[in-house]
Amino acid sequence: MINAGIIGGAGYTAGELLRILINHPDVDIAFVQSNSQAGKPIASVHTSLIGETFLHFTAQGDYGKADVLFLCMGHGKSAAFLEATPVPPEVRIIDLSTDFRAESPSHEFVYGLPELQRSRIREANRIANPGCFATAIQLALLPLARHGLLEDDVHIHAVTGATGAGQAPGATTHFSWRDNNLSVYKAFSHQHLAEIRQSLTQLQPGFAHQLNFLPLRGNFSRGIFATAYLYTDLGADKARDLYEAFYAGSPFVFLSPSNPDLKQVVNTNKGVLYLEKHGSRLLIISMIDNLLKGASGQAVQNMNLMFGLDEAAGLRLKPSQF
Amino acid sequence: MINAGIIGGAGYTAGELLRILINHPDVDIAFVQSNSQAGKPIASVHTSLIGETFLHFTAQGDYGKADVLFLCMGHGKSAAFLEATPVPPEVRIIDLSTDFRAESPSHEFVYGLPELQRSRIREANRIANPGCFATAIQLALLPLARHGLLEDDVHIHAVTGATGAGQAPGATTHFSWRDNNLSVYKAFSHQHLAEIRQSLTQLQPGFAHQLNFLPLRGNFSRGIFATAYLYTDLGADKARDLYEAFYAGSPFVFLSPSNPDLKQVVNTNKGVLYLEKHGSRLLIISMIDNLLKGASGQAVQNMNLMFGLDEAAGLRLKPSQF
Amino acid sequence: MINAGIIGGAGYTAGELLRILINHPDVDIAFVQSNSQAGKPIASVHTSLIGETFLHFTAQGDYGKADVLFLCMGHGKSAAFLEATPVPPEVRIIDLSTDFRAESPSHEFVYGLPELQRSRIREANRIANPGCFATAIQLALLPLARHGLLEDDVHIHAVTGATGAGQAPGATTHFSWRDNNLSVYKAFSHQHLAEIRQSLTQLQPGFAHQLNFLPLRGNFSRGIFATAYLYTDLGADKARDLYEAFYAGSPFVFLSPSNPDLKQVVNTNKGVLYLEKHGSRLLIISMIDNLLKGASGQAVQNMNLMFGLDEAAGLRLKPSQF
Amino acid sequence: MINAGIIGGAGYTAGELLRILINHPDVDIAFVQSNSQAGKPIASVHTSLIGETFLHFTAQGDYGKADVLFLCMGHGKSAAFLEATPVPPEVRIIDLSTDFRAESPSHEFVYGLPELQRSRIREANRIANPGCFATAIQLALLPLARHGLLEDDVHIHAVTGATGAGQAPGATTHFSWRDNNLSVYKAFSHQHLAEIRQSLTQLQPGFAHQLNFLPLRGNFSRGIFATAYLYTDLGADKARDLYEAFYAGSPFVFLSPSNPDLKQVVNTNKGVLYLEKHGSRLLIISMIDNLLKGASGQAVQNMNLMFGLDEAAGLRLKPSQF
Repeated sequence: MINAGIIGGAGYTAGELLRILINHPDVDIAFVQSNSQAGKPIASVHTSLIGETFLHFTAQGDYGKADVLFLCMGHGKSAAFLEATPVPPEVRIIDLSTDFRAESPSHEFVYGLPELQRSRIREANRIANPGCFATAIQLALLPLARHGLLEDDVHIHAVTGATGAGQAPGATTHFSWRDNNLSVYKAFSHQHLAEIRQSLTQLQPGFAHQLNFLPLRGNFSRGIFATAYLYTDLGADKARDLYEAFYAGSPFVFLSPSNPDLKQVVNTNKGVLYLEKHGSRLLIISMIDNLLKGASGQAVQNMNLMFGLDEAAGLRLKPSQF
Repeated sequence: MINAGIIGGAGYTAGELLRILINHPDVDIAFVQSNSQAGKPIASVHTSLIGETFLHFTAQGDYGKADVLFLCMGHGKSAAFLEATPVPPEVRIIDLSTDFRAESPSHEFVYGLPELQRSRIREANRIANPGCFATAIQLALLPLARHGLLEDDVHIHAVTGATGAGQAPGATTHFSWRDNNLSVYKAFSHQHLAEIRQSLTQLQPGFAHQLNFLPLRGNFSRGIFATAYLYTDLGADKARDLYEAFYAGSPFVFLSPSNPDLKQVVNTNKGVLYLEKHGSRLLIISMIDNLLKGASGQAVQNMNLMFGLDEAAGLRLKPSQF
Repeated sequence: MINAGIIGGAGYTAGELLRILINHPDVDIAFVQSNSQAGKPIASVHTSLIGETFLHFTAQGDYGKADVLFLCMGHGKSAAFLEATPVPPEVRIIDLSTDFRAESPSHEFVYGLPELQRSRIREANRIANPGCFATAIQLALLPLARHGLLEDDVHIHAVTGATGAGQAPGATTHFSWRDNNLSVYKAFSHQHLAEIRQSLTQLQPGFAHQLNFLPLRGNFSRGIFATAYLYTDLGADKARDLYEAFYAGSPFVFLSPSNPDLKQVVNTNKGVLYLEKHGSRLLIISMIDNLLKGASGQAVQNMNLMFGLDEAAGLRLKPSQF
Repeated sequence: MINAGIIGGAGYTAGELLRILINHPDVDIAFVQSNSQAGKPIASVHTSLIGETFLHFTAQGDYGKADVLFLCMGHGKSAAFLEATPVPPEVRIIDLSTDFRAESPSHEFVYGLPELQRSRIREANRIANPGCFATAIQLALLPLARHGLLEDDVHIHAVTGATGAGQAPGATTHFSWRDNNLSVYKAFSHQHLAEIRQSLTQLQPGFAHQLNFLPLRGNFSRGIFATAYLYTDLGADKARDLYEAFYAGSPFVFLSPSNPDLKQVVNTNKGVLYLEKHGSRLLIISMIDNLLKGASGQAVQNMNLMFGLDEAAGLRLKPSQF
């Protein structure tokens, strides 16, 4: 069994991680560290775990007892934690923040998008888990980049559920405001653009077109619904063939034969893609659950790869559908 | 024209009041006082007022210039405000907090439920505006109390929209939590029970039965949907007659001929009631918009009465229905 | 007073029209014709009108008694109705369907977007009321077209509320499906593109760029939230000046000084626009209530113009905001 | 492996059953029969199963190949099906309709609420799977009935998600209507009262008090949130002891230590209960997912018992929580 420790255990991604790991056939939860909730039962915070665990949050985990640490502390805090904290080098680390997503000689983290680089992840000791928008958008574009087909600007819209904004309450996550509402934020400037471009350039060296990305706040709890289109000569059938081939070995990414809707992927670790060609425009719809394939599910997928397990272990989740 | 001043102008009830008063044919807005937003345009906070007002929040209104002050500061703050602030005695005051709803020799506030005591309100200088749950539940029960027919315990459930919890964000108004969710709070002990009992006893002296009231948090923005039932010999037709008679002079309370739904009343100042008799059980459904008939609309209704205007002036609002 | 008749009185747009006209200071409702509901009280179908009207649906209105007829029957049915029905020529007609939006020598309908051609509407006897998506998108683009500045392809993404799909229940309006869901439909091929292009070409002759329009089904009841962007040399300040100037005489269209959200416009007849410039990309956000500025509110605005009334008569509606 | 056949495969409960059985360690799906969808891929109807199954609906299953048949056809149709269809007697049957919930000498179906009669279910060949409201309400009241403590009328209020109404679209499942709405239906007369009373009387012979049950339509997709209270001398601690003892051997029913909310149970097979005592009133909150513990999850739980499997096999589902 793999002993897993969680740092930053009270937030949304830690909760989702726990909901997965509790039923993972190859994992024991060694400890769940939380400053704010230390001493309390885990199920008193992540209340849907009632009856599934009697663990309590701890102020300080014993890192030596963990085979893998999941860092769920929020952006900017993982780097500070690792500087301040002596984690034994043999403990594998999966960081869910943005801190190490930019590959750099200054650190050894590998960008953890299995569909981009499964074999590097299998060899890695430290993983930077991708962002939720970044995952949805990369799944939409990687097969084109692989074939050097991103030959024009790409027009991207993506709507995120409220859990993407995290647990801290605020004006734009207040129910009275968000219910039946929509808004744009960080137009053309979302921080995930950096990691998206990094991956696309990795597959299509020299890629220099615009990624015109409009993120929207949606009035739903889970999910990312992204559309991307570009002008291309690539035909519809050929496009589908490329996508099918690219994702042939990926247990979680599927090409929908018909026009999909977001709830198909909610409460699953799937990425569902759909292609349509209209004149010279190739439209790609890409959908994930932001807490699963966009965060904690992908973190477990990475863990599975790092430890040589079935990539889908613990991740065959019943979809909610409704 | 009546000059109206608003104290505590940045919150939900003040916003709703402004959205009404801006189109009220007999009112000018003298000032809107807000500590937190002083100096900013009103439409920058109550954003749906774009194009309707160029007023700014002020740190300190000139109370002498107002014919009526609406106190929208939140519970506990109105009493403190009035102690600290020299409001000229000829300025009428309508307080939306709970502070003066308990009638008492220590203050001159009149409980402002027009359907209970329209003539006292017409003569009043100071009004304690009723609570939202309290309004919905009293509308359901007053006609029975008038005839001494509350002869058994009453069983009450009421579900409130998220705006009832006010603007400050918190765990139970976080969209991720509240979306598609329900919960009970303050079972059998909600603070509005006091004002409800006060009114029922006023109409039915000696009333001493239980009011078993379960309040629920609903996953919608506006509205209160209340059910109440009790065992009674009163027949269905006779009950409808009593209710029709009781509300004959009330421009906002209606008896629905068929089973209603909450959105009938949303964005209106109406109270809609519906009666069914099942065996010895008389069921009353009562619905209001918590921000209108449950707060700011009722405050304007009270103002209209105090100033001798048409009771419905400024309150003939287009329902949203959807 | 203007006597108004409504044909197709049981649907969503007729209901919204009634909710407006009942409080319109210059209108009497002459009759509301409905095949499916003839004989029933209007308030039994449009239930939020309880207490506001005692009218009944009629199987056959007396068209000679109407000064204006609103056709609310759905697409394709207005043309058939007018062929089969002898409407006296002096009765003005406002058609809410798509049937006459394409201007043509074969009919005398004028396209009823006041912000495009207020003076033609004032002289018209017959009005083709614009589509909801078409209104939101035209409001976003007309000022650029006026100045010949649509010099590149335009990228448009717009999400519609469920009321846009009408009253007939179906798979994609089922609550279980649509709740917390999103989907694309009619990608790049929505029928409203024709009327949008017609108007743009009217202002910018020779306009031949792509309008890449992705319509989405949103999980909310009312509203259209549209974004449009294009590459342009036009600076941000200059753009704002153009938009302010273009809409200077329009009582319902406003430029938001800050990043807006859809609920600002819900239950109003407003169009709210917002501009941002990012590098060479000009982003325009455009928001309307699909049942008001996108349908029945605009129909009343057109009626007001045709009869020489204040353009905003009956349309100063309290926003719901929440 | 157990070979499972599903009759009526296109509806909501069949879809949920498939989403469970596909990951059940001891089950193979033999066939999924559907008149309306015969020949189509299952994943084209239950779209969240993309990538999980390549099975197609069949017009006619081979009942001899099944160890168990799940009847998911809707109320009234199961009895007709079994009369017309020669199902081999050794094939176990689990019926999700109301048809056989009333125990009777005329049929051999056992009422399949494991928490009521686990041992009878283990021996049964035919199971009548309980209703969703009935399950939530029985879980709230069974421990009291076991001890003869239902000594007064019980006041019950329960709100159901839209999936409870099934797949056929209609007025009260239209998104435009149901979004942000609430309504009562079948007040004091819901058909599930019969099976609730049958079980309570089984445990507390002679039980004859009123079950005053108000069912409400909620604006959410999944779940039932029920409250029940009655006057009783039973103390809070003693009540909790009784409930803990009653459910000690039940793997899915838990007593929450703190005030719960509906989403704790969504996408799980759990029943979560919560007790509060207020004066003489004992309040019980009971929550289930209507499609799981209220339908298909409970059906699988019954199957597990009938075949001697771990009662929770295939039902350790990741909660969605959000």
